[in-house]
Amino acid sequence: MGLIGAGVMGADHANTLRHSVAGARLAGVHDTDRQRAAMVAGIAGARVHPSDHELIESPDVDAVIIASHDSAHARQVLACIRAGKPVLCEKPLAPSIEDCQEILTAQQQRGMGDLVSIGFMRRFHPGFTAMKAELDSAVLGEPLLALASHRNVRAYPTGGSVGTLTNSAVHDIDITEWLLGSPITEVGWFAPKPTSLDRDRHDPQLIHLRTASGVLISVDLFVNAQYGYDVRYELVCERGTVRLAASVPILTDRDLAHGYAHATDWRAFFADAYRLELQAWVDATSSGRATALATVSDGLRSTLVAQALVRSMHTRQPVAVSEVSPGHSAHHADDVDLPV
Amino acid sequence: MGLIGAGVMGADHANTLRHSVAGARLAGVHDTDRQRAAMVAGIAGARVHPSDHELIESPDVDAVIIASHDSAHARQVLACIRAGKPVLCEKPLAPSIEDCQEILTAQQQRGMGDLVSIGFMRRFHPGFTAMKAELDSAVLGEPLLALASHRNVRAYPTGGSVGTLTNSAVHDIDITEWLLGSPITEVGWFAPKPTSLDRDRHDPQLIHLRTASGVLISVDLFVNAQYGYDVRYELVCERGTVRLAASVPILTDRDLAHGYAHATDWRAFFADAYRLELQAWVDATSSGRATALATVSDGLRSTLVAQALVRSMHTRQPVAVSEVSPGHSAHHADDVDLPV
Amino acid sequence: MGLIGAGVMGADHANTLRHSVAGARLAGVHDTDRQRAAMVAGIAGARVHPSDHELIESPDVDAVIIASHDSAHARQVLACIRAGKPVLCEKPLAPSIEDCQEILTAQQQRGMGDLVSIGFMRRFHPGFTAMKAELDSAVLGEPLLALASHRNVRAYPTGGSVGTLTNSAVHDIDITEWLLGSPITEVGWFAPKPTSLDRDRHDPQLIHLRTASGVLISVDLFVNAQYGYDVRYELVCERGTVRLAASVPILTDRDLAHGYAHATDWRAFFADAYRLELQAWVDATSSGRATALATVSDGLRSTLVAQALVRSMHTRQPVAVSEVSPGHSAHHADDVDLPV
Amino acid sequence: MGLIGAGVMGADHANTLRHSVAGARLAGVHDTDRQRAAMVAGIAGARVHPSDHELIESPDVDAVIIASHDSAHARQVLACIRAGKPVLCEKPLAPSIEDCQEILTAQQQRGMGDLVSIGFMRRFHPGFTAMKAELDSAVLGEPLLALASHRNVRAYPTGGSVGTLTNSAVHDIDITEWLLGSPITEVGWFAPKPTSLDRDRHDPQLIHLRTASGVLISVDLFVNAQYGYDVRYELVCERGTVRLAASVPILTDRDLAHGYAHATDWRAFFADAYRLELQAWVDATSSGRATALATVSDGLRSTLVAQALVRSMHTRQPVAVSEVSPGHSAHHADDVDLPV
Repeated sequence: MGLIGAGVMGADHANTLRHSVAGARLAGVHDTDRQRAAMVAGIAGARVHPSDHELIESPDVDAVIIASHDSAHARQVLACIRAGKPVLCEKPLAPSIEDCQEILTAQQQRGMGDLVSIGFMRRFHPGFTAMKAELDSAVLGEPLLALASHRNVRAYPTGGSVGTLTNSAVHDIDITEWLLGSPITEVGWFAPKPTSLDRDRHDPQLIHLRTASGVLISVDLFVNAQYGYDVRYELVCERGTVRLAASVPILTDRDLAHGYAHATDWRAFFADAYRLELQAWVDATSSGRATALATVSDGLRSTLVAQALVRSMHTRQPVAVSEVSPGHSAHHADDVDLPV
Repeated sequence: MGLIGAGVMGADHANTLRHSVAGARLAGVHDTDRQRAAMVAGIAGARVHPSDHELIESPDVDAVIIASHDSAHARQVLACIRAGKPVLCEKPLAPSIEDCQEILTAQQQRGMGDLVSIGFMRRFHPGFTAMKAELDSAVLGEPLLALASHRNVRAYPTGGSVGTLTNSAVHDIDITEWLLGSPITEVGWFAPKPTSLDRDRHDPQLIHLRTASGVLISVDLFVNAQYGYDVRYELVCERGTVRLAASVPILTDRDLAHGYAHATDWRAFFADAYRLELQAWVDATSSGRATALATVSDGLRSTLVAQALVRSMHTRQPVAVSEVSPGHSAHHADDVDLPV
Repeated sequence: MGLIGAGVMGADHANTLRHSVAGARLAGVHDTDRQRAAMVAGIAGARVHPSDHELIESPDVDAVIIASHDSAHARQVLACIRAGKPVLCEKPLAPSIEDCQEILTAQQQRGMGDLVSIGFMRRFHPGFTAMKAELDSAVLGEPLLALASHRNVRAYPTGGSVGTLTNSAVHDIDITEWLLGSPITEVGWFAPKPTSLDRDRHDPQLIHLRTASGVLISVDLFVNAQYGYDVRYELVCERGTVRLAASVPILTDRDLAHGYAHATDWRAFFADAYRLELQAWVDATSSGRATALATVSDGLRSTLVAQALVRSMHTRQPVAVSEVSPGHSAHHADDVDLPV
Repeated sequence: MGLIGAGVMGADHANTLRHSVAGARLAGVHDTDRQRAAMVAGIAGARVHPSDHELIESPDVDAVIIASHDSAHARQVLACIRAGKPVLCEKPLAPSIEDCQEILTAQQQRGMGDLVSIGFMRRFHPGFTAMKAELDSAVLGEPLLALASHRNVRAYPTGGSVGTLTNSAVHDIDITEWLLGSPITEVGWFAPKPTSLDRDRHDPQLIHLRTASGVLISVDLFVNAQYGYDVRYELVCERGTVRLAASVPILTDRDLAHGYAHATDWRAFFADAYRLELQAWVDATSSGRATALATVSDGLRSTLVAQALVRSMHTRQPVAVSEVSPGHSAHHADDVDLPV
């Protein structure tokens, strides 16, 4: 495997590959920061490549993991498609819809199935997979309503209100379509007064998603929730409900309190999901089978839905996903959308 | 105490008064069904009164509990005010806003404080009172968002989509204003496709409430949830969250499952709340102190908010509570609002 | 009702009677500390009696609650029996087996059923009553094993290792016989090294109880558990288990932790049980029916079992309850039984 | 890696190695049933070896996993030691104490550290490792008491009362010594009447373990618990408690019940533990570092403690582990120890 991007997420993937995934070996690393690349490569006994291009072309590299800056994703993914190498690209596939579509076209023209997988790791989280199995068993009947929460301890300084949608909500969007097997066709955006602990964005936000199958999904996004990293999801069906359990190893009693510790960030919360995702990708890549990971189409669709949410945030009206023109980009709107 | 209405709720109150409330005795009962009245009165050793008027006027009766049909509430409450007797009226105070306002005016003209209390029993549920105490302690900081669920096993055959708002959602409305200490000023109404188990109404529904203080509240209402009677409420604050715990006496393990039994209806779920409410009302009534129960103003406000929700259901637009004119009544609209 | 003993427990009963129990009124109070008696009596509008004897004999007093010092119980209960008045005596009925037997004899000679009830309030705790209902439903099959915990935040300075058995374990003994409907016939006593936070007693202790029906019960008793007041009980049956749920009103998330607050003492934990017990006693007393409370025989049996445990603590051998001679008293042994 | 034994456990290891463990490959398989060996080998692309001896000696095999019949363990482990190859032997290391000691001696004579690791997988279960971390953090103070449960859905037809101790309790013994870092020096054995669903053994059993450090551990073992596979462990310390949480992916509400599904056997419950154990062993083996797995000494000690429990079962007295002579074997006593 080759790895492009040796930052937090890339180093994490290298570590998972080395210590927890069967059937693969890290052969090459590239990072714009050569020292960072050397560190990650050194541990794994891999080569450092001076450019992403060279890594992608290297005969030692059978498949590529992209964990570079979002802005480089599209170019690197296209290079992998040209080289005919399977690629696992961290989400988002690309910040702009045009780039997503260019990748989709390039892959289709090549005509040999999905080369590109996207790192929507929730699809491999044991809670989400068990929830899908429960739903698919039909014991609970048709899903009608979903209630979800997506909460971080503290926001990144950059990102703003739009970033919450394009960086965080995309996970809720993707997992919703995957769970329900139906595309999201309409969205709505809402917010209470923002937390006084962050004056730079709407926080929390509350979003509505509607699927073609008629399910309504409500998700609260709170990037400064302070209390812990917390992801919840409940499906309310005709004959019952199913929700993620808090998966914790131990419970304690002390100081007049009973309870458990929250995860502090997404990596601890989704450690199993990342491992299982990488394993599934390695297994598929090695055997030439299609992966169970999100595809370019999935990535494009989640970006479109996020853009529809950005528009709804600006207009305070429901927005059909079909309204979002490919020429639209929300990023310039970011700094004018402070809460009032 | 005198009791008007010896149906399910009235018999429940008589029973609670007799077996669980200190300092009061049931002295008189009236019901349009005399036999029913006699049965409840007999157990308690109380007199049966041939008319509500006579019961209210009876010198044996110091205070009146009204658990009659909703349509009789206003007339009976007004008679109590004229008689100068404290009255605990089951919710809703009256189905029409005009009736609520007439009661408010009558009480104000009498000029001796609140004679009328309304049976919004949630205010006495140990979970809600603990949640309010936690909120008031300010440890969690300002509330920003609330997420609530209100689910019944099976709908009453009548009621329709409007009934869900005027009968069920009023509880969520009242408890929200009580918890947050701020009036609801705007509402929104949403729904997924309806459950196939009930073709007569929108079910579930999802409502948004906004307080003057800027909090956004999302409540799902599902009167055919099948799985159990279930009320949830979570307050998401700047520094943490607080929510109702499932208050159950025992946990079992059998047949490869761990868990607990759901309540089948609101009476089991709120048994403590009903007892504590009645006790608080008896204590206040006996001592001439103001009650901690919901007042006529509270009852009027919850009816106004429910009517705003009905309008939002019809227009699919957000509705300001101030828009709801006193002349508006939603009841005629009920049967034309089937889900499409 | 008359109340003898206006300390913590007596004041609690007076308060419960006044604010939460139907059909009774506090008419008289006696305490060796007259001021304390006057305070409790004043709130309730009751008379202060200069002696327990006078209170018991007073025609205003139909029934008597005894919450005095343990050493006075026997004499006062015997006086109530002579006066033919129902009495609710706080546990223990009497510290010595001879006194318990004298009361039993006096009551039997009078020949009109149980006049004396004992305040083993656990029998009215909603968790224990639900557990008994589950057991009696036979869904889980025969009980085989019970696992219980009884933990306090901090020990009273006096009491020592014996006190843990005669004051705390008696509750576990009584509830076990009540739940299982079979007498305890054999006991065993065990302990780990004691906590360093209390050098004056064995703490924690672990006791075994065996019923005539063959069930083995293991209870850990930890009077300096620090973390909270906590009572647990699980019945392991042939086809499944049932246990007490933690009955808490709210859950919170903050400071990277999820959880709930523990009770700090038994009064908060068993508030419902005390209320329901007093109500059941008042209902039975008013109507002349037998009470569902523990009887003199129950009280005697729990004392015998506790004494068998004291003997087992001294001998480190299993002890048959039948071995415990009525002449035996463990109290003198208390101070020689420090952990080594 | 070479695998001896291609039954349930062996096939499981082969599968884990292939799909979830980094850095190793199955090169050879042996089983007395050649067809079974061929099936497991075929999937992994490994060779089938006609004898265990040949597999152990094969130059393709760097390290050996033994999952054969218990009676073959000692001979095969000794052969691995002679061949100088690291070996992961499923528990028990050997049924007899003499065999364990012979292995220990052989390894010591070779003088190059621990070649032999034993599959006590609980040491890698995320709950147990988190519990050890909590204990080691010293926040809760000294451990005093431990309360554990070990319950299966249904017993194997063979095994009897002794089998519960030598096959099941050894896990509780090993994890206790590992958690507490102190050897068990004394044991006690107890039982209620047995379940009517299995007349062939004492079931449930309750055992006491005491460590040199003074901690008392009580474990109930119930191999016919019916309701699910369930392992619990709580450490009661001076300032609080820590226990395993039920690690489940989802919660459901339906049919008037809330809850989650129990595991049906140990493999689902400990899947993570098996994976992490095998990974740790592969990592250590590849790098020549000492493993974190249980050693021969650990295996010998757990067998000694189990034998002391067998003796306690027969004598109904506490037994010091030092009393258990190496010549003692409990297996012949099995069929005479039916519950009476």
